[in-house]
Amino acid sequence: EGSTVRPLEIKKPSILVKNVRTKPVITALPTDDVEDVAGKLVKNNINHLPVVDGEGKLRGIVTSWDIANAVAKGKKKLADVMTRKVVIAREDESVDVVARRLNKHEISGLPIIDKDNKVKGMITAEDISMLICNGQRRGKNGGSL
Amino acid sequence: EGSTVRPLEIKKPSILVKNVRTKPVITALPTDDVEDVAGKLVKNNINHLPVVDGEGKLRGIVTSWDIANAVAKGKKKLADVMTRKVVIAREDESVDVVARRLNKHEISGLPIIDKDNKVKGMITAEDISMLICNGQRRGKNGGSL
Ligand SMILES: C[S@+](CC[C@H](N)C(=O)[O-])C[C@H]1O[C@@H](n2cnc3c(N)ncnc32)[C@H](O)[C@@H]1O
Repeated sequence: EGSTVRPLEIKKPSILVKNVRTKPVITALPTDDVEDVAGKLVKNNINHLPVVDGEGKLRGIVTSWDIANAVAKGKKKLADVMTRKVVIAREDESVDVVARRLNKHEISGLPIIDKDNKVKGMITAEDISMLICNGQRRGKNGGSL
Repeated sequence: EGSTVRPLEIKKPSILVKNVRTKPVITALPTDDVEDVAGKLVKNNINHLPVVDGEGKLRGIVTSWDIANAVAKGKKKLADVMTRKVVIAREDESVDVVARRLNKHEISGLPIIDKDNKVKGMITAEDISMLICNGQRRGKNGGSL
């Protein structure tokens, strides 16, 4: 009485961000025209571009949603519509943690940065859901909601 | 020999599209200006708008990605950039099936339509991942990848 039995906690080794296969990163500059950035998104069939300075350090992020925002507000320069406070992922973080961060902030992609703030890649909800689906769905009949 | 033991298949009742809590649907018309559609996406903080005709029947879909496309190509009318071949969900389909359809087509939202082709709502990867997370993650330590 007064004491509870705790279930044995089994720790699985977690997958780190640097081990996830992501697409090669494409970036934009704050001085870019919205029109050129839109072209980059469309040409590469992507939805997120990290915005970097001349040294490759992270300065912001832009998505096609920000382009829609620029159109709605008549803004022409990326600096006027990019998001400056970027939620990021670090190479040595576990994918679990990053997945929860994506959920918490209701966003679909994070720039991966190293200790010098340089952009190494982007990790997206799609990259992660690929992992989750492969890990959790065992066999054809295991995935019923 | 020659025969295999099949695991007992347990059928859980599946959740249907019409039982998923989705946001109220906002639509666009093919004749709308790209600029106005961009404003609708931004104002409502959404990413997809089903495009309907005067009777509310589905004619296409537009996302902020298509707005970026319009900017890149200098198009002004929604009809010039909307996607006409729309992947859809029906009210009586199970969410499992819809989740697999989203994955297969690498898209994040499907208009829900009734038998008359009228738009009833949108179901998004976000709506579904909400369900999956609530269903599969039992307790704090159950979600390790
Ligand atoms: C980033 S994806 C680009 C995909 C690219 N067009 C392709 O198929 O490789 C965005 C495109 O998917 C389209 N899309 C989004 N939801 C859709 C749906 N339910 N059915 C058909 N197309 C859809 C959008 O209209 C937009 O053109």
